[in-house]
Amino acid sequence: MDNDASWTSWGATRPALSRTARSLLSGALGTLTAQQSVAIEAAQLPPARLGAGAREALVAAVGESAVRDDPGSRAEHAGGQSYSDIIRRRHGDASEAPDAIVVPGSAAEIAEVLRICSEHRVAVVPWGGGTSVVGGLTPNLGGCTAVVAVDLGRLDRLISVDHLSRTATFEPGIRTPAAEAALAAHGLSLGHIPQSYERASLGGYVVTRSSGQASSGRGRIDDMVLGLRMATPRGELVLAAMPGSAAGPDLRRLVLGSEGTLGIVTELTVRVRPVPATTHYEAWVAPSWEVGTRVMRRLAQDGPKPDVLRLSDEDETRFSLAMSGTAGAKKHAMDAWLRVRGIRGGCLVVIGFEGSAADIRYRRHGVRRVLRSEKAVPLGSGAGRSWEHNRFSGPYLRDTLLDEGVLAETLETATTWSQLQGLYDGVRDALASSLSRDGRKPLIGCHISHVYPAGASLYFTVLAAAQPGGEIEQWAAAKRAANDAIVAARGTISHHHAVGTAHRDAVTTDLGGDQLVGVAALRAVKEAVDPAGILNPGKLLPS
Amino acid sequence: MDNDASWTSWGATRPALSRTARSLLSGALGTLTAQQSVAIEAAQLPPARLGAGAREALVAAVGESAVRDDPGSRAEHAGGQSYSDIIRRRHGDASEAPDAIVVPGSAAEIAEVLRICSEHRVAVVPWGGGTSVVGGLTPNLGGCTAVVAVDLGRLDRLISVDHLSRTATFEPGIRTPAAEAALAAHGLSLGHIPQSYERASLGGYVVTRSSGQASSGRGRIDDMVLGLRMATPRGELVLAAMPGSAAGPDLRRLVLGSEGTLGIVTELTVRVRPVPATTHYEAWVAPSWEVGTRVMRRLAQDGPKPDVLRLSDEDETRFSLAMSGTAGAKKHAMDAWLRVRGIRGGCLVVIGFEGSAADIRYRRHGVRRVLRSEKAVPLGSGAGRSWEHNRFSGPYLRDTLLDEGVLAETLETATTWSQLQGLYDGVRDALASSLSRDGRKPLIGCHISHVYPAGASLYFTVLAAAQPGGEIEQWAAAKRAANDAIVAARGTISHHHAVGTAHRDAVTTDLGGDQLVGVAALRAVKEAVDPAGILNPGKLLPS
Repeated sequence: MDNDASWTSWGATRPALSRTARSLLSGALGTLTAQQSVAIEAAQLPPARLGAGAREALVAAVGESAVRDDPGSRAEHAGGQSYSDIIRRRHGDASEAPDAIVVPGSAAEIAEVLRICSEHRVAVVPWGGGTSVVGGLTPNLGGCTAVVAVDLGRLDRLISVDHLSRTATFEPGIRTPAAEAALAAHGLSLGHIPQSYERASLGGYVVTRSSGQASSGRGRIDDMVLGLRMATPRGELVLAAMPGSAAGPDLRRLVLGSEGTLGIVTELTVRVRPVPATTHYEAWVAPSWEVGTRVMRRLAQDGPKPDVLRLSDEDETRFSLAMSGTAGAKKHAMDAWLRVRGIRGGCLVVIGFEGSAADIRYRRHGVRRVLRSEKAVPLGSGAGRSWEHNRFSGPYLRDTLLDEGVLAETLETATTWSQLQGLYDGVRDALASSLSRDGRKPLIGCHISHVYPAGASLYFTVLAAAQPGGEIEQWAAAKRAANDAIVAARGTISHHHAVGTAHRDAVTTDLGGDQLVGVAALRAVKEAVDPAGILNPGKLLPS
Repeated sequence: MDNDASWTSWGATRPALSRTARSLLSGALGTLTAQQSVAIEAAQLPPARLGAGAREALVAAVGESAVRDDPGSRAEHAGGQSYSDIIRRRHGDASEAPDAIVVPGSAAEIAEVLRICSEHRVAVVPWGGGTSVVGGLTPNLGGCTAVVAVDLGRLDRLISVDHLSRTATFEPGIRTPAAEAALAAHGLSLGHIPQSYERASLGGYVVTRSSGQASSGRGRIDDMVLGLRMATPRGELVLAAMPGSAAGPDLRRLVLGSEGTLGIVTELTVRVRPVPATTHYEAWVAPSWEVGTRVMRRLAQDGPKPDVLRLSDEDETRFSLAMSGTAGAKKHAMDAWLRVRGIRGGCLVVIGFEGSAADIRYRRHGVRRVLRSEKAVPLGSGAGRSWEHNRFSGPYLRDTLLDEGVLAETLETATTWSQLQGLYDGVRDALASSLSRDGRKPLIGCHISHVYPAGASLYFTVLAAAQPGGEIEQWAAAKRAANDAIVAARGTISHHHAVGTAHRDAVTTDLGGDQLVGVAALRAVKEAVDPAGILNPGKLLPS
């Protein structure tokens, strides 16, 4: 965990709420009950279960200092970054702590750790940046006797660069800023920019099938991974970097999304590009969600494609402007500017480009033509830069909201363009209905931030008055309702957050349908490579 | 099989060799022994082994007329389109014939056929267009008692079109021209154009991970498939069309490249696009293979990318020009034109664009700038159109060459840009050394026709004087040498032809390395979905 991140908050900074934001919140959500955090030193830890024999073998494999079962280390690894995970820790509940943390220093040590854990029936939770929001780090025993987190923080190097092929090979535990810094020394960049950028690890991106904010231009992590090494209890899986192949099923795609249930990625080779010569961001307002969605679709299908392309619905647009402090005279002037152009409310569109000046000029021209043809109104590059500046601020802002007593969580899905509105309506209704109580309603915003020729993602942000003492059950009910709505509307249960424990009982459709053929196939793979069943039990596959 | 294709030739037409081509051939390869073909009526078939009980059950499932074990039907399904397959048939050897052909009329019938075959231990070879060049249709028994080909020719419909999402859902047995015609009625196009276009089926593309000539623009079939249904002995795998997801490993990618070993695809949903408003082809000559390769790399990495992008090496360039009848005064003029610009020999570059006129204009401009900066010389759009016109002529021309007594075969691989020249040299040397005898050498041409930011494919065409009566052993030795060279140079054993029987003993590296973890994973999947082991035995996985 980074030094500046405490066990209950994303980072050291906690943005203050503007008066506008505060009045919008209390107006919409009603009375809020401010919430305190229990310090890590007071965390309630479950008894540690790691047997002396297993501990001894692990110490022999990785060294005494790399097997950590002190209360601080355990509490620091007590779950990920979902609302429930954070609330639990804020309450001083470290029940999600593993029995010990093992910090191997090499791929060989990882292999040895897996061997020892198989022998001693110790469950292994691979630990990268610790940013799972779907319960991917929950220390389930499965049939094992104890659970260790295998923290990959020491495997944090850029191993090599192939300039001609524009690939770079990394160890899995490197965080994105460090990876970008190492690449920048070669004039290169990965350009994978999810909101968890500051803390997530490259290995974590791979096993959870991450997608970054520049996915329109760079694609998902799925598209960037060319080669892999994965340690499994059965041996090492080695997939050399290959641009394209028809030599059987692409086994890289079996590792992508495996969520630590099949092995631990020990090395990954990714596509990189020269650091872009220029970047340009701008913001527009589309007259409505319907029109904005059409703009997204036209650009995704016929281009030109910006590298970043986002559309907020009306509620998210209103809320984002309030949060960013666009208020008073500024807000008034913007409303007037839009009203003259026939827009009341409206939906924020953010577009971003990276590349050569000539390339950006060409694409901007085409994108603007599409926006203008749909009567969207430009807010200029200042508003675009403001989005870029705040692109990682979401998790910090959440800390503030939790302090105020707000339930703040996100979830995401995707489907084809023809089913998108049905999915949007279904999930919104499910969340609104579950979280409304005594006349108090939640605030639900949504944006499209990943587009494809065939469809798009929907990313929902939910704010509601937290029920003091009942926060976890309150969100669990809403999450179940959202999962059901997603399945009913034929969306994917996760577009870029993975399955973990949060979605495992709603993943059947995604994994091959009711006859469970796909689930059986994945189970068979797991049994073949992890016969003792130690790897991240209780994740991904239905219970 | 199409009406115009006989059992030993690709089609009804057989292009004549020009005088230039004939003299180039005999000059290079030495004396050739013309070769005859045995008619299908005289084919030697092995005894049919399908038991009466199994036959009866199959007839009950699909109808009497859909279970065919007459000699003609069996001989027509005796192998695919590899050199060895064709030579065997030309010799009247139908030993590759299945015991019977089953022609189901629906997905439900396919499921029932798989159930019956599992019960009776009858091996199943899924049969689409019959165009495998890697032995994918070889009727291996595995541990079974008989082998049936399941011919998907009756499942040839466009099922539905989703205009908004630009997807189309097909039955698996439809051939590409029929699929394109059905889409054209909706103003749409798939745009997957391999050389086997005229006969290959969409289902076949999927399970062999095909890549078409416009892959620079449209991507591999891997990128086009959004949804699938596959019948397996264990039940149906249903993967809905989804633009992007993080809900576990993408099981579509387990079907892609499965080569009929896991099930039979019964439905596929693919990305489609509007029929392009304009197409434009042009040809250039690059000063050398090295420079031409750099042009390919620059365009693949920094763009703009044409939709079709090909580079022939010097030998293939010379041979292609001879074959296309560019001879005499025309050839003389072209040589002079090039010589003035400093090029002797040189390497043919073909580029193609499809899209709007404005988009093509922009990309052409950028592509030309790159070509000019590398001192490539334009041959104009006539030469480009000539390539487009002849893009499917290879298999027809091969028929002519076989008649003349020429061994004519192709093979392909891919690797990263930094390893490409080593792979090129290694495979060329291996083929040349294996096929040289008594001072007679083969003609070996190579082209790059699929480019990626990280690397490219190499497609080799080999011509040699066939050894009468020893053709199959002659090529088998050369193929082994090429396989070894590919593995040694860290290429993939197939870029777009698949594994089949031809590559299964050279696929270990592609499938996860020496510890066989990947092979074990795939075997486990197979055992889970095909417990009786009936599905296409002896393909894909190492023996």
